Amino acid sequence: MTPTIPADLARYCDASDARARDELFAFLRIPSVSARTEHKSDCADAARFVADALTRIGFTTTIERTPGHPIVVGEWRHAPAGAPTLLIYGHYDVQPAEPLELWTSPPFEPEVRDGRIYARGSVDDKGQLYLHVKALEAHLATRGTLPINVIVLAEGEEEVGSANLEAFLEREKTRLACDAVVISDSTMFAPGIPSILSSLRGMAYLEINVRGANGDLHSGMYGGAVVNPAMALARILATMHDADGRIAIPGFYDQVRPFPDHVRAQMRELPFSDDQLRHEVGVSALGGEPGYTTLERLWTRPTCEVNGLLSGYTGEGAKTVLPAVSMAKVSFRLVPDQDPQTIAELVQRHVAHVAPAGVTVTVEALHGGRPWRADLQGPIIDAGKAALAAAFGREPVITGEGGSIPVVGDFERILGAPVLLMGFGLPGENAHAPDEWMSDENYRLGIRAAAVLYDEYGRRATR
Amino acid sequence: MTPTIPADLARYCDASDARARDELFAFLRIPSVSARTEHKSDCADAARFVADALTRIGFTTTIERTPGHPIVVGEWRHAPAGAPTLLIYGHYDVQPAEPLELWTSPPFEPEVRDGRIYARGSVDDKGQLYLHVKALEAHLATRGTLPINVIVLAEGEEEVGSANLEAFLEREKTRLACDAVVISDSTMFAPGIPSILSSLRGMAYLEINVRGANGDLHSGMYGGAVVNPAMALARILATMHDADGRIAIPGFYDQVRPFPDHVRAQMRELPFSDDQLRHEVGVSALGGEPGYTTLERLWTRPTCEVNGLLSGYTGEGAKTVLPAVSMAKVSFRLVPDQDPQTIAELVQRHVAHVAPAGVTVTVEALHGGRPWRADLQGPIIDAGKAALAAAFGREPVITGEGGSIPVVGDFERILGAPVLLMGFGLPGENAHAPDEWMSDENYRLGIRAAAVLYDEYGRRATR
Repeated sequence: MTPTIPADLARYCDASDARARDELFAFLRIPSVSARTEHKSDCADAARFVADALTRIGFTTTIERTPGHPIVVGEWRHAPAGAPTLLIYGHYDVQPAEPLELWTSPPFEPEVRDGRIYARGSVDDKGQLYLHVKALEAHLATRGTLPINVIVLAEGEEEVGSANLEAFLEREKTRLACDAVVISDSTMFAPGIPSILSSLRGMAYLEINVRGANGDLHSGMYGGAVVNPAMALARILATMHDADGRIAIPGFYDQVRPFPDHVRAQMRELPFSDDQLRHEVGVSALGGEPGYTTLERLWTRPTCEVNGLLSGYTGEGAKTVLPAVSMAKVSFRLVPDQDPQTIAELVQRHVAHVAPAGVTVTVEALHGGRPWRADLQGPIIDAGKAALAAAFGREPVITGEGGSIPVVGDFERILGAPVLLMGFGLPGENAHAPDEWMSDENYRLGIRAAAVLYDEYGRRATR
Repeated sequence: MTPTIPADLARYCDASDARARDELFAFLRIPSVSARTEHKSDCADAARFVADALTRIGFTTTIERTPGHPIVVGEWRHAPAGAPTLLIYGHYDVQPAEPLELWTSPPFEPEVRDGRIYARGSVDDKGQLYLHVKALEAHLATRGTLPINVIVLAEGEEEVGSANLEAFLEREKTRLACDAVVISDSTMFAPGIPSILSSLRGMAYLEINVRGANGDLHSGMYGGAVVNPAMALARILATMHDADGRIAIPGFYDQVRPFPDHVRAQMRELPFSDDQLRHEVGVSALGGEPGYTTLERLWTRPTCEVNGLLSGYTGEGAKTVLPAVSMAKVSFRLVPDQDPQTIAELVQRHVAHVAPAGVTVTVEALHGGRPWRADLQGPIIDAGKAALAAAFGREPVITGEGGSIPVVGDFERILGAPVLLMGFGLPGENAHAPDEWMSDENYRLGIRAAAVLYDEYGRRATR
């Protein structure tokens, strides 16, 4: 029997959908770009926004200062004796919005078009964080109580590596003690197919700087005798893959623990079309590591990507400059059991080995996160399945994801609680690109799924 | 016997040096950046400035419209019967000034520090063009006449490839008919060592654009399956040289005509120190094509340089984007008898061959210029040697240069006149970089050398 949404919660949600969207829009209007120092006060505003919303529905809320952006903690601990504690994690910070000229509507002026809420942070992660606030409200407004104790933890540094979260979890692990963690910051396999994520890739994000002469030089007067830092950078980057597309950094694959055959088999059963992906992103051919399907490449294999390149003259027309410096941002997606710090060290060693004489090359690790693989059993997983089935009218599928939520492993390790990844994003949502959107329908169904989750988890986990 | 500066010219120059510098400063204040459409009216202002200066000293002047920036032609044709006609070529346009933050003083607010005139265009080429205007003035103001007929031709598109000059020379070749051409747009071998340039490298300047997906993608969600245009660009650029530093584009060296052994031998005699160059530009080692000295690499061998790189996210911090596009500006310095168009086609063919599937690569030729080698004899060369000796008190050396003045070959071919390259720049002058400067002393001595040149050329070439 497919679970259903309890009538009281359903009624409340139906009556308050418009307001739920209005409140989200107010949240989305705050340009809380954690990577940019000029948005520091916007991040503080976004933290306050979350805290105020939780306070309004009956939570006890604190805004915790960190060396970076603050962490919001909301607590509601009035559940019946024996009820479990669920920690809901999300982040209020967003990616930079550049390049601004590629947005159809301004990134911080949310707008619904064709059933999609367009705004920076709509799906990553403000919409998916705020739907939990609205689901908690549905319980408290209709019943005056929740079936479980709830801690909401919203941080403001997820998009820059969550540098201060791990220490915070360590320091506050007594207060944050819980029986399970739920995170909605991921993507469903396809529209109408609710999904539980079983694996995430980790990340090692590095910046490579190559310095040549003490200033830009005339490429005619010095070219051919002074080593060109832009060409040197290109040659360094080209050594990172072999001709077939495998990563060629010595030792890079040493820690990779292959995914079990039955997981790979299940991935092959998911309805997936290379042609459709090609068409969606608009390329004539896909690429990647030989010997794996596209879903395996995305979910189970590590990558090396150039995220940014800058050197010399990049404006209109021609300038015959021999640049003094060049820069690449390079990130590696990691899979169990690769360790971000080990990978960063391997890259640093490799770059030092291949760097030519005549330039100085530095490799700085900007941030990293461990990869993660779920243990797919227990009450929080079962509750998640039931909640998604109730909201979407069909059983969820189990997926992997190529993206990283570095903190997932930290929660499991420090709090000793299993993590349910129940996300409501959709493929093509432009999470880190112009025209980011979240499905308006998924925002609404997400509120309902979260509301049912608290019931189902309470029913299964109350002692 | 070392030639000397005639007393009347010397007195006039001594008395008017301060004004000569003031006038140059006014010229330098005009931001005539030919590469930028927003500076179109500044280029027109600079053209008018040159025309007005020539009119003031007694020239008949016209400003000729072109599809791009205008060409200024000044004429003085009242020399005695049998006197030759000398065409003086220069350019009033300048390179873009970016990156602005690296200038000690603003690029268009000229300033003298430590005997150097700092400004964009000071040495390339406004100072070196304007010193001829002041030398012509010295003759006309002291003697009321010139010993030769003079045409001054100042264009405004040298820094963007002189796209309209060749057609102008063809169209106006009767009016521009002359017995010799002098160009001051080059560098002396060292301070105090006047130089006549015997060879210039040509240029093929290309822009490579790589396009992947139809928009920036999340590097986690798509990384490993969608080909990365920034990495593809790096791999393409890395194929342009072999491991030893030779250019690896098939056919690239086919048209190279080696410099004669006696020219190479003479170059080896010039006082040159690799260590000093290393120290000057601030690098730990030089590089380049094996089998050649540094001066040979700079003057006699072709190069491939990356002048600019841009892709993805280049701001502060980390952004996990899989960029949709990447761009490189790549230029090749050419030596006789390489042809810019042939080289552009070889590069296009090579890039098409090595470009990976999954991205679209275009190679656009932005501009090109032929390399050049002088025939080092005749009255204009002898007059140049005498003029430089008079102004600097020592015989000039014969040098090569790595830079390009693409029009030199056009003048020889279209007007049938030999070209004297008599430049007053100095090593380290930052011609295309921040803090461009021209030696204040060389500006003054250049006026005197040019003034003597007209006398010496008239004496040698009048029939």
